[in-house]
Amino acid sequence: MSLCAEATLPDHPFIAEMIRQTRAFDSYGVNAQLNTTELLQPYIVTKAQRREIPIIGDPDEEILARLKAYYSAIAMRIEAGCGMMATPLFSLSHEGFGRVIISVGKLLVLDRSLRDVHRFGFESMESLCEQAETLVDKALELVRAHPDAATA
Amino acid sequence: MSLCAEATLPDHPFIAEMIRQTRAFDSYGVNAQLNTTELLQPYIVTKAQRREIPIIGDPDEEILARLKAYYSAIAMRIEAGCGMMATPLFSLSHEGFGRVIISVGKLLVLDRSLRDVHRFGFESMESLCEQAETLVDKALELVRAHPDAATA
Repeated sequence: MSLCAEATLPDHPFIAEMIRQTRAFDSYGVNAQLNTTELLQPYIVTKAQRREIPIIGDPDEEILARLKAYYSAIAMRIEAGCGMMATPLFSLSHEGFGRVIISVGKLLVLDRSLRDVHRFGFESMESLCEQAETLVDKALELVRAHPDAATA
Repeated sequence: MSLCAEATLPDHPFIAEMIRQTRAFDSYGVNAQLNTTELLQPYIVTKAQRREIPIIGDPDEEILARLKAYYSAIAMRIEAGCGMMATPLFSLSHEGFGRVIISVGKLLVLDRSLRDVHRFGFESMESLCEQAETLVDKALELVRAHPDAATA
């Protein structure tokens, strides 16, 4: 029995999208047998866990899939919020440095530098949801401020 | 003596930028001893040459550097045309498929799918300049149409 099987996930609309995207990025069904709590567990990297991870390291395929699932879930929430397609684009070096953008029409609604991707994770599920929601809200504000570019 | 040393480059503002960017992407100075005509020669892939290249292939580092130099030169021309910073972003698979965007502020002024990058090249220098100028003009039109997003 898994250690985290008893934990409950926060009741947040972002969680459902995270589950959907994490399953979508699991192309080979490696995690198909996990329950939702176990599935999202790797997104949690506490301060203590982070200290154990070397400062410099190359991100592996699994962590890249998590990073992409996270920003794809944000894109889906932006899409749900404005009714227009939101597309993420990742540009990452082998060393885990790069940039992610999300566009709606011709508008960049999210534009972030990525670094230390091999240590990608959140203190808690609540913190993950809060940070994502902040990014979604900012993106939707931009869509409202520049509707012409967003629909171009 | 190089075969192409006698050829002349078209008198086009894009050529100067192509030379600058191609030199910039030559981090190790491998091509430092080449004259400008020799330097830009690899951008020319004629129909006959294209037929010799396998349909499927992984792009090597040199061709990726040329692709990036080309779109960076376009970004520089956009910058020169509107007086605002234009930033390219590449997202490419190992197989040479992907997407390139150029943003000015929060506006996507160029957004292209990339494919068959291992066969990247142009019929002639004139054709390279014309195609680039078309992309630059379209981007500048977008900046004029959505000045609020471009300056956001």
